[in-house]
Amino acid sequence: MTIKVSHLTSKTTQGTDIIDLTPQVINEVHASDIFNGGVTLFVPGSTAALTTIEYESGVLQDLKDAIERMAPQDLAYEHDRRWGDGNGYSHVRAALVGPSLQIPLVEGALLLGTWQQVVLIDFDNRPRTRKIVMQVQGE
Amino acid sequence: MTIKVSHLTSKTTQGTDIIDLTPQVINEVHASDIFNGGVTLFVPGSTAALTTIEYESGVLQDLKDAIERMAPQDLAYEHDRRWGDGNGYSHVRAALVGPSLQIPLVEGALLLGTWQQVVLIDFDNRPRTRKIVMQVQGE
Amino acid sequence: MTIKVSHLTSKTTQGTDIIDLTPQVINEVHASDIFNGGVTLFVPGSTAALTTIEYESGVLQDLKDAIERMAPQDLAYEHDRRWGDGNGYSHVRAALVGPSLQIPLVEGALLLGTWQQVVLIDFDNRPRTRKIVMQVQGE
Repeated sequence: MTIKVSHLTSKTTQGTDIIDLTPQVINEVHASDIFNGGVTLFVPGSTAALTTIEYESGVLQDLKDAIERMAPQDLAYEHDRRWGDGNGYSHVRAALVGPSLQIPLVEGALLLGTWQQVVLIDFDNRPRTRKIVMQVQGE
Repeated sequence: MTIKVSHLTSKTTQGTDIIDLTPQVINEVHASDIFNGGVTLFVPGSTAALTTIEYESGVLQDLKDAIERMAPQDLAYEHDRRWGDGNGYSHVRAALVGPSLQIPLVEGALLLGTWQQVVLIDFDNRPRTRKIVMQVQGE
Repeated sequence: MTIKVSHLTSKTTQGTDIIDLTPQVINEVHASDIFNGGVTLFVPGSTAALTTIEYESGVLQDLKDAIERMAPQDLAYEHDRRWGDGNGYSHVRAALVGPSLQIPLVEGALLLGTWQQVVLIDFDNRPRTRKIVMQVQGE
């Protein structure tokens, strides 16, 4: 059993930017020479999150709308009152969606659904360069 | 350290069907002959999710009600406008709850709480046959 | 590849108590003598959850406010009607946030962001003593 670590890099824009990480993830899986095990993805930072969704612009907008209802940008946030960052809503959204994801790898294939992509959601209120930690573990 | 893979099958009905996977999960753990490690569960597909909850009909209804507030079925979804699937709300719900779960296995026991069951939530607007990927990893 | 298990203990108060587990998690990582692999955290029980957030009192309040909007405490819950526990909202909140977290460990360092802490959120309506299961796996 071995573990291979890589860092996926993604430049994001401000305002709930949703990035499809699937091609990078599959590349790293192939490069790992690991065929059975799992992939752990984790985004360091407190204003971004990981999940899966069909990467189709309509439903991406629908997801943004739902998240806006859950933690609206124009509310008064305590975080902003104290620190003036203006990204209190970003922190709340990231904590609700969560920073980690675990995907099974079986006989060389990531077992994602046909219409299921791995996405980074950057909730921050300014462009960022994100490094997502990826580990392929198995044999 | 070994990994054993299995697929749990679950037939679901339309409309936020919540299925208790715990008996199947425990059966597979016992069949694996692995006593210390962890269980990874992942649902392929972009309209279903996994979490844990007390599998009691009252609180299952309460969860459905909360999810309906977060992504109401009767809103206008961009996904439906473009693709006519009518399940834009299902995709949004699945992305918010998330597709993966990781449960520790210690001395032969899955460390779930007494009132904590592993559930599949199928958000799709039609009956589905779901295959959940389960990996037991350890020794 | 080895696995080390420990239990983090946390006394909580009623009413969405958010506890910073990071110091305990880092202590256990150091005690494990494992340098590359991952940490799995899981909270047994159906009224608590795990996520990451900047542990800063302003944004903690903002998170509590968002969760209160998602599953308000003063709604009528079916769980309470049937069982009289008064904590239907706690169950719903826990199921939405989720019980498990996976964090990469690379060259002896947990790859959390600078402002990103691991937190237990106890949603129950009474004080609890929580045991969080932690596994360090790797080599």
